[in-house]
Amino acid sequence: MINAGSSSLKYSLFAETHDKRLERRTDGGIEGIGSDKPFFIAFDDDKYQIDEYHWDKATSLDELLAFLIEWIEKFLAPDHLSAVGHRMLHGGTLYDEPILVTPEVLENLRKLIPLAPLHQPRILTVIDTLAARYPGLCQIVCFDTSFHKTNPYIAKLYGLPQSLTDKGLLRFGFHGLSFEYVSMELKHIDMHAAMGRTIIAHLGSGASMCAMIGGKSVASTMGFSALDGLVMGTRCGQLDPGVILYLLQHEGMNAKELETLLYQESGLLGVSGISNDVRDLMKSDAPSAKTALELFVYRVVRETGSLAAACGGLDSFVFTAGIGERSPEIRAAVCEQLDWLGLELDERANQLGELKISKDTSPVSIWILPTYEELMIARHGARLSAECEAHQP
Amino acid sequence: MINAGSSSLKYSLFAETHDKRLERRTDGGIEGIGSDKPFFIAFDDDKYQIDEYHWDKATSLDELLAFLIEWIEKFLAPDHLSAVGHRMLHGGTLYDEPILVTPEVLENLRKLIPLAPLHQPRILTVIDTLAARYPGLCQIVCFDTSFHKTNPYIAKLYGLPQSLTDKGLLRFGFHGLSFEYVSMELKHIDMHAAMGRTIIAHLGSGASMCAMIGGKSVASTMGFSALDGLVMGTRCGQLDPGVILYLLQHEGMNAKELETLLYQESGLLGVSGISNDVRDLMKSDAPSAKTALELFVYRVVRETGSLAAACGGLDSFVFTAGIGERSPEIRAAVCEQLDWLGLELDERANQLGELKISKDTSPVSIWILPTYEELMIARHGARLSAECEAHQP
Repeated sequence: MINAGSSSLKYSLFAETHDKRLERRTDGGIEGIGSDKPFFIAFDDDKYQIDEYHWDKATSLDELLAFLIEWIEKFLAPDHLSAVGHRMLHGGTLYDEPILVTPEVLENLRKLIPLAPLHQPRILTVIDTLAARYPGLCQIVCFDTSFHKTNPYIAKLYGLPQSLTDKGLLRFGFHGLSFEYVSMELKHIDMHAAMGRTIIAHLGSGASMCAMIGGKSVASTMGFSALDGLVMGTRCGQLDPGVILYLLQHEGMNAKELETLLYQESGLLGVSGISNDVRDLMKSDAPSAKTALELFVYRVVRETGSLAAACGGLDSFVFTAGIGERSPEIRAAVCEQLDWLGLELDERANQLGELKISKDTSPVSIWILPTYEELMIARHGARLSAECEAHQP
Repeated sequence: MINAGSSSLKYSLFAETHDKRLERRTDGGIEGIGSDKPFFIAFDDDKYQIDEYHWDKATSLDELLAFLIEWIEKFLAPDHLSAVGHRMLHGGTLYDEPILVTPEVLENLRKLIPLAPLHQPRILTVIDTLAARYPGLCQIVCFDTSFHKTNPYIAKLYGLPQSLTDKGLLRFGFHGLSFEYVSMELKHIDMHAAMGRTIIAHLGSGASMCAMIGGKSVASTMGFSALDGLVMGTRCGQLDPGVILYLLQHEGMNAKELETLLYQESGLLGVSGISNDVRDLMKSDAPSAKTALELFVYRVVRETGSLAAACGGLDSFVFTAGIGERSPEIRAAVCEQLDWLGLELDERANQLGELKISKDTSPVSIWILPTYEELMIARHGARLSAECEAHQP
């Protein structure tokens, strides 16, 4: 699968084993796209570096992509690439399932650009470039919104006039590939927990939480955009609309400036004035770093209450993604403030980062489950590539 | 006290009894200000109409106010008005207590206009006009934000850069006079409930909820402005900041249009397309009316979970204000979805609108307590008027 970021192009390559499991063979990517020193780096399945390449001048996306695909084909030889899966932020009201790219789908995806203007165009460029160079290549798009299609309508609705709702101004929710993967993992590990009322906290530099009943999403903290809900690395999270009116009317900000403020200058970075990274803030003695971390935890706690209300109580709580998987301090702070809801943390298991970190007596079971969005995309890709081959001439 | 709305000027007149209680003598007001047919109407303490007056042309606020005060002085004779209390939405970071109006205070209050541009200027005009006509009159301003001054800093903070936080872009919360009054009433009725973890749901055409521990506010659903939180009659409530960016960038709306949209065309009215009034929606067969009511209830339920998290669980839940006091259907729907949190409604007590409407076995006690913001303002006024008299020459 290929994950196209604003200045990077990451890949993970999976192969199907004889028993139909997907195994990662290599991953890596190109960083510094747009700069005058882009570089490529690749790792094997044990995360040992196996190759690198440096360009000495700014290089077009077209060329970099060609390099990447040729490298992968060479790595694979004598096998060939059977499909490329892409992660896309927003499926809007058009797509709520992973889908095979056709010219018609591409046309529709272009219409969705206004829903995620910072993310979507770059991915479409990658798809176009690949399609032009490898006309037969099977490409699949997976949406971060799909998993939330099971939300009841009332959970998707804003208090806006119907005319705007009809234009797609609804709560979609994101991080769906992560929630889907983690909820499948939870089923393997503890079917009882997975079939009950579960909250998954995907706490990374982007962060959101999902409430599920029986493995199906019923609500999440992100809404129409990836700005809402929790405080993130550089994104504000939940914000009173009156604040934005004030910034427009009394601080003279325009839409572009607001976008930069809310996506790139807020969150942990904005509050602390120090860093968007929890690890840096943990190391800092500055009061503002402490405040930023407290706010991060507080918002997780408040949203947990709100999500518990959406699923009528809680049976299990899962931490995942960078901060969720690797910060025992954040996990402990969250659980401590949620004891009223029945979360009883096993301090030792938490420090050791074990799979299950709740006490045996805890009414709500607590888990750390590493997420793996790339594998989820590869699984959708493998499933859909059969359909793709049927389309081939 | 005088409550200056956008097209009305309401008053309530209280007198101190010999045992220092405040009793309402008359209330009423002038409606249709700005129209060519303003009218005055007055009621006695039993709500029987005792007077009315109609103007046959548009009449200045100055004249209407003069009429009102002269009418009140005539009603009171031989007694005199000892103080006038005003309800003001926003105290910003400047005022967190009711305050006596002095020229300095007035100057400061003018600086707060940007925080509540729709409400604040009208009230200041009334204060100015009264001060000019009755130079000795004691005037007091009560803020709807004051009650929330006990919120921990972390509950007030948005995920915004420190520079904006320093400019006062914080969660203030509103309906403070209502919460203050209701929490005092709860103390009279059930000290145990009042001293625990309590949520008050002020559900009127404006609506917000407050979480308290031991009678002190720790969090509320409104934030910097009166737009946030619950879905209201015509206000949107909680909204993804990304929605506003979209409306600015892709629907070509400007700040003024957004303000009109979010304050006046959204909420129950916007979602239903029918009415901003729960009673009208109850009577309607339209699916959109049902959806609007479901959304109203759903948002109360979600915010209850979030507020319970802010106070670490829940001991009592209070309904107040128009919808809260008079809609057994809404109360029943809210409580049904909160059974997981320990709310067990006594159906019969709810239908009868009794004071306590939870079952005896309910872990969380549930109450209907009528709010009385006017009396709360009068109490602050009576307390502060002593100070005022000390200032008189």
